[in-house]
Amino acid sequence: MLKVPFLPRNWTNSTENFDEADCVMVGLPYDGTCSYRPGARFGPELIRIASYGLESYSPIQERDLDDVKFYDAGEIEFQLGNREDSLQKIETAAEETLLHNKKWLGVGGEHLVTFPAIKAYSKKYPELYVIHFDAHADVREDYIEEKLSHACVMRRISEIITPDNLIQIGIRSGTQEEFEWMKENNTIAKTQEEFKERLKFPENKPVFLSVDLDVLDPSLMSGTGTPEPGGMTYNELMSWLMLLKNLNIVGADVVELSPHYDQSGVSTVTAAKVIREVLLLMN
Amino acid sequence: MLKVPFLPRNWTNSTENFDEADCVMVGLPYDGTCSYRPGARFGPELIRIASYGLESYSPIQERDLDDVKFYDAGEIEFQLGNREDSLQKIETAAEETLLHNKKWLGVGGEHLVTFPAIKAYSKKYPELYVIHFDAHADVREDYIEEKLSHACVMRRISEIITPDNLIQIGIRSGTQEEFEWMKENNTIAKTQEEFKERLKFPENKPVFLSVDLDVLDPSLMSGTGTPEPGGMTYNELMSWLMLLKNLNIVGADVVELSPHYDQSGVSTVTAAKVIREVLLLMN
Amino acid sequence: MLKVPFLPRNWTNSTENFDEADCVMVGLPYDGTCSYRPGARFGPELIRIASYGLESYSPIQERDLDDVKFYDAGEIEFQLGNREDSLQKIETAAEETLLHNKKWLGVGGEHLVTFPAIKAYSKKYPELYVIHFDAHADVREDYIEEKLSHACVMRRISEIITPDNLIQIGIRSGTQEEFEWMKENNTIAKTQEEFKERLKFPENKPVFLSVDLDVLDPSLMSGTGTPEPGGMTYNELMSWLMLLKNLNIVGADVVELSPHYDQSGVSTVTAAKVIREVLLLMN
Amino acid sequence: MLKVPFLPRNWTNSTENFDEADCVMVGLPYDGTCSYRPGARFGPELIRIASYGLESYSPIQERDLDDVKFYDAGEIEFQLGNREDSLQKIETAAEETLLHNKKWLGVGGEHLVTFPAIKAYSKKYPELYVIHFDAHADVREDYIEEKLSHACVMRRISEIITPDNLIQIGIRSGTQEEFEWMKENNTIAKTQEEFKERLKFPENKPVFLSVDLDVLDPSLMSGTGTPEPGGMTYNELMSWLMLLKNLNIVGADVVELSPHYDQSGVSTVTAAKVIREVLLLMN
Amino acid sequence: MLKVPFLPRNWTNSTENFDEADCVMVGLPYDGTCSYRPGARFGPELIRIASYGLESYSPIQERDLDDVKFYDAGEIEFQLGNREDSLQKIETAAEETLLHNKKWLGVGGEHLVTFPAIKAYSKKYPELYVIHFDAHADVREDYIEEKLSHACVMRRISEIITPDNLIQIGIRSGTQEEFEWMKENNTIAKTQEEFKERLKFPENKPVFLSVDLDVLDPSLMSGTGTPEPGGMTYNELMSWLMLLKNLNIVGADVVELSPHYDQSGVSTVTAAKVIREVLLLMN
Amino acid sequence: MLKVPFLPRNWTNSTENFDEADCVMVGLPYDGTCSYRPGARFGPELIRIASYGLESYSPIQERDLDDVKFYDAGEIEFQLGNREDSLQKIETAAEETLLHNKKWLGVGGEHLVTFPAIKAYSKKYPELYVIHFDAHADVREDYIEEKLSHACVMRRISEIITPDNLIQIGIRSGTQEEFEWMKENNTIAKTQEEFKERLKFPENKPVFLSVDLDVLDPSLMSGTGTPEPGGMTYNELMSWLMLLKNLNIVGADVVELSPHYDQSGVSTVTAAKVIREVLLLMN
Repeated sequence: MLKVPFLPRNWTNSTENFDEADCVMVGLPYDGTCSYRPGARFGPELIRIASYGLESYSPIQERDLDDVKFYDAGEIEFQLGNREDSLQKIETAAEETLLHNKKWLGVGGEHLVTFPAIKAYSKKYPELYVIHFDAHADVREDYIEEKLSHACVMRRISEIITPDNLIQIGIRSGTQEEFEWMKENNTIAKTQEEFKERLKFPENKPVFLSVDLDVLDPSLMSGTGTPEPGGMTYNELMSWLMLLKNLNIVGADVVELSPHYDQSGVSTVTAAKVIREVLLLMN
Repeated sequence: MLKVPFLPRNWTNSTENFDEADCVMVGLPYDGTCSYRPGARFGPELIRIASYGLESYSPIQERDLDDVKFYDAGEIEFQLGNREDSLQKIETAAEETLLHNKKWLGVGGEHLVTFPAIKAYSKKYPELYVIHFDAHADVREDYIEEKLSHACVMRRISEIITPDNLIQIGIRSGTQEEFEWMKENNTIAKTQEEFKERLKFPENKPVFLSVDLDVLDPSLMSGTGTPEPGGMTYNELMSWLMLLKNLNIVGADVVELSPHYDQSGVSTVTAAKVIREVLLLMN
Repeated sequence: MLKVPFLPRNWTNSTENFDEADCVMVGLPYDGTCSYRPGARFGPELIRIASYGLESYSPIQERDLDDVKFYDAGEIEFQLGNREDSLQKIETAAEETLLHNKKWLGVGGEHLVTFPAIKAYSKKYPELYVIHFDAHADVREDYIEEKLSHACVMRRISEIITPDNLIQIGIRSGTQEEFEWMKENNTIAKTQEEFKERLKFPENKPVFLSVDLDVLDPSLMSGTGTPEPGGMTYNELMSWLMLLKNLNIVGADVVELSPHYDQSGVSTVTAAKVIREVLLLMN
Repeated sequence: MLKVPFLPRNWTNSTENFDEADCVMVGLPYDGTCSYRPGARFGPELIRIASYGLESYSPIQERDLDDVKFYDAGEIEFQLGNREDSLQKIETAAEETLLHNKKWLGVGGEHLVTFPAIKAYSKKYPELYVIHFDAHADVREDYIEEKLSHACVMRRISEIITPDNLIQIGIRSGTQEEFEWMKENNTIAKTQEEFKERLKFPENKPVFLSVDLDVLDPSLMSGTGTPEPGGMTYNELMSWLMLLKNLNIVGADVVELSPHYDQSGVSTVTAAKVIREVLLLMN
Repeated sequence: MLKVPFLPRNWTNSTENFDEADCVMVGLPYDGTCSYRPGARFGPELIRIASYGLESYSPIQERDLDDVKFYDAGEIEFQLGNREDSLQKIETAAEETLLHNKKWLGVGGEHLVTFPAIKAYSKKYPELYVIHFDAHADVREDYIEEKLSHACVMRRISEIITPDNLIQIGIRSGTQEEFEWMKENNTIAKTQEEFKERLKFPENKPVFLSVDLDVLDPSLMSGTGTPEPGGMTYNELMSWLMLLKNLNIVGADVVELSPHYDQSGVSTVTAAKVIREVLLLMN
Repeated sequence: MLKVPFLPRNWTNSTENFDEADCVMVGLPYDGTCSYRPGARFGPELIRIASYGLESYSPIQERDLDDVKFYDAGEIEFQLGNREDSLQKIETAAEETLLHNKKWLGVGGEHLVTFPAIKAYSKKYPELYVIHFDAHADVREDYIEEKLSHACVMRRISEIITPDNLIQIGIRSGTQEEFEWMKENNTIAKTQEEFKERLKFPENKPVFLSVDLDVLDPSLMSGTGTPEPGGMTYNELMSWLMLLKNLNIVGADVVELSPHYDQSGVSTVTAAKVIREVLLLMN
């Protein structure tokens, strides 16, 4: 090999050593059920490149990525048109990650990728809680006659973990039926007070954190498939996430960056910075 | 005709039946007096396309577009360089709409299109109030020696309805003279308290609501001719609009989307969502 | 209805009268098997808007769109994730079109949409010829284990019409196997001389013309999913198309505009102009 | 003033001394009759900025801008909505330029700006020839009932100079009537052979050169109001312009750059380079 | 010269008379040490163009640019690759400005341009305070072994004015060492209360105001080299700036607009508007 | 590690085995002397991503990347502001590559990166020929008093290899002095005939091929720092490159992609495809 220094190729500040890692970052370039503006398949690799523009230190958490051992596994290779095979690969990878006693950090890709991860997690953690940040309810019974779509993903997940274990934040778009379902099942936390109330579940219960980046306002996060004005600022998202500080976060994902709608690069940088904070939060 | 299902071509959730409609949406692709960045002429058709990415349900108003009967008439055909003819066509169309006992919802196009609508409305409703959301005062006596410009539109309208019946929200740009005029005539409501005070006019007075989309901050609404930082967030606009809930809104327009400055598509989606809320508010 | 003139909503110069039309333009907003940059689903509606920037007169053919009777049926409504259902709808619509003794003009959408049209056509025209303009061979046996992908569409079609009836123009990208297949089956015409030779089939044989817009160089046609430098100029494409003047073109499609990669709007205008020329050529 | 070196603010290599100049460059930021995509008003100032990225030396003409004395007068201040006043200002400025025995080089702005320049020129040069490079015929009798539009400008000019003195190059779009008019009046030169034939007018006749940048293919010149595929490459335009080398060019303009449709900046650079060549050609 | 009115070429509402000016605006198109996305060199000229879209009146300060006498000197000519020479030119120009008893308003370019200005200022004002708005701490001891980088500029400045005289606002990104340094040296003011406390220095002390535009959130200010989500809104920045109203501001700069990342033009307009407010604040 | 298939992270079809490689691809993200629009530093990583959209088979050369053994070493880590150190690292890496008896394929970055590679090569190959494709002469004696700039790189190289061993193709921009120098030294080959003549040097002489992507017309290659209209089409570049088929190409580089000016992604795809052809040509 050549001896001059080369730039790293994995996520900034990740470890090259799988064994010493506590967390495995897995790129999930899948967007096969996207209903509006596709392209989330390009998210993981462009977020990785943007990670090199980040500082490793988080002034909010007063911690540095160097304090965390995470391994960047790269992107899973999917057959884009084959949803079943794609979901199976994600489930398998998440299972393997858990078998190695490491935490999963999925980087989407569309939101459907959370479903197979939860399937894997629920086997190990039958009492899993899922905390879901999103602009969209994603609790349709089906979407255009299809039950496995990114528009239904949280409904499917609620069938695994029960609606009682699902907490939804930031939801500002959905059908009347979805809003009724969320009300009936009390899954939404509209204020931080409500959220803190919902978080009073027995200590150390395992939590999976799923962040759909469109929870952020599209003024910042234009690079997403279904932009929905009225979202959080970055600082608002941070203040919600900081409420999770003492939870037992056993896995997470950050999804739905569609970088081709991010002409200025700002959404992609933001995605990388959210992931930095999630990494620090869960490790 | 062919029997496979085809996508609708009119605004999402609009009715195909003119007679049953309570409200007529009319596209006004006119931008002939635009002083800075033109292109509002392309607004109506691109907002219509974006309307198909919207949910029909508004969680803020807890109502669905399906509860409203509105007809999408399409875009009026203008001779772009001929201002007088263009304004006359708008006035005629608004008069006809009123004759059918339906409400007018104009989709701009530049702000000057509000003037002929108000001319038509003031004949039927001599005591009309106009509530005006905008970044710009638009109350110049004239603009570069011209009295019929989008920079003068609210001054012209005040001459019809009297300044007493004009309420202006969100204004953050204008000449010294304009700010003095607004102060003297007490047209601006700076806070929601002031606004509620101004809204204490006799019950059931007819109100025309005119929303220049640049009242929103250009971080969200880059797609406009004269972007002006310091504007409202989407949620702030909604909280102002919700104060109009019990008013007798007899007509409205939403203007100044210039979609070629909206590279990410976010402004156009936002315009469509504002229109959804206005439709629900006025019907 | 209102009496002021409104802009037409269908393709420029199309007829509103289905019965009098000789040709039916059908939008096919499907891009479910797109392997690289998706978004062709947005093609048909944006091409329609761009059609209003066109002159109706073609100086190359010295004919005017007003001389042609075509009906714009709008866009078929697909369940995006459901390929089989989508293909079935296209086949049904094409069959119906033929039953009405009208010609089909599909506007894609991705190239896979040609397959169901050819299935319909081959029943009525067992000796159908297909003339295929494209950058890509699209004759893979399968693509990532999938036989019904836009990368395989011409191979599937060749199985219906036989390779003898397939003529491919402009191909500059493919696997070694694809180039070998095309050579063995003599489907490529590299020069206009070769093309004229291939066109010497019995007079009046029915021809289906399928134009993948990426046959044009991406300097002009950036708005496509898989840009491939080294393509034709617009004038070169025209000179090839003019060789078809005396053929019996019974159907056609123009596919693979992906307008979100067309920041300047030039590709979309070009797509509309190609369609104008195809309309004049086939009617 | 400050003594450190400051960057020049006028066109690269222009002279600061009006009196010593042989040629006056005048920016004409007018686009009031633009029928499709407006914004040519921003052309002159952005071309000036791009001029600093140019080499001053032309390898085609083997001459340097330093060999030419031209003065950059800046942009005329128009009232955008006031067409008559705008045209009058251009005519006055062109007359003054001629009174100073200098040559006019207009930088558009839309093509209508050529008309008042020709009015001024025709008084001094009753036998003026106009050589017109354009994608569009611009010889409509009127456009949407309007006789003074950029779509009619060459028809109006032909009424001043007679069609015999008009030579049109590159035309590839127009109505049937326009193509018939051009044929009848023999204004088009389709090939360089035809062009050379048309140039055989009596020696030293005064020539005004008007270049609409959309004569170039929109692959290069996306930044224009009405892009028309099928145009010239830059080198083709140069080879036509070089045929004018021995003519007595007494004035010129370069028009219709609409820089907001030039996301990459390439069209604006090209406009500046065309102007460099025109400057060298006419001086 | 020609007599028709020409548009001004200097900053809107600037004076052409150097002698009568109280303030000199100097463009500093330098970005040689930019570590991530370069292009700030194009800032000054594009901000100048955008200044013509501004109103001259500030409703926040209730003053008009016409009340201020400032001279637009243009852009200094740098040898981009030669940092020492570039910094020397800025220092010389700032010294000259001070010799003329005028105030310096630098328009960047990258943030390193503040350093030579402070060198010049500190000679005349040994007790200079620097108020620094920025997303980034810029107080690294060195950056990739380099001490004169935009990432170190405030550290170098603190060595001139002492950390006691440095007040930093809006900082949300840096290394752990930088945050520790700022804490130790008490340079950060996190809240307006802290800021007011820090501003209680002896009356009339000279203040230099340095605004890195990335202190604004990248939703508005995408056009910058190192976008950092979590920043101020425009109105928040204004409310901080208004706290400086009674200070003795003797110089200022506004830096780091990188206009090629500002596809919609909104960041550039915002930069111009910030400069309008700074001009009114310091004069 | 995880067992599901992951996407490769190195250039498409590259080998993971350094030892078996005949050629080493080295990313050179340096753009420190760029005089106009910077950003070439982002070229190598974005070209790598685009390589996955390529077919591995070249129909022009009738060979497949699988037939070539090349190793993707990644990007050298530079201190951007430190030109000397950056150039030294490149020279060292090139020397090492040669020591391993492998061929160097540099991926720029700006054109100055060719200089240190040639320094390394000239030691091993004292009779090295350099074939240089470019829009710009790059043979200035110095550029703004600087001798080591991308505008001088070929002059510096000619001082190492002698002008006799330099062949320049596609040059269409430069100063008068540069064109005179090239003429005197007979370095330009304007036609393929001239080129073939120049290639008649003794057989098997070692050749270094340096392709500045701006040799292509900016209609295709907008993503470059100094776009220059009048360039080659992709197919023209290929026809020139194919003339090198039987030469002994011992090293190469492909430089000056500036991807932030490539909004549509087409230039980046083209860069990847040019590299595919160069890889096949030299191995």
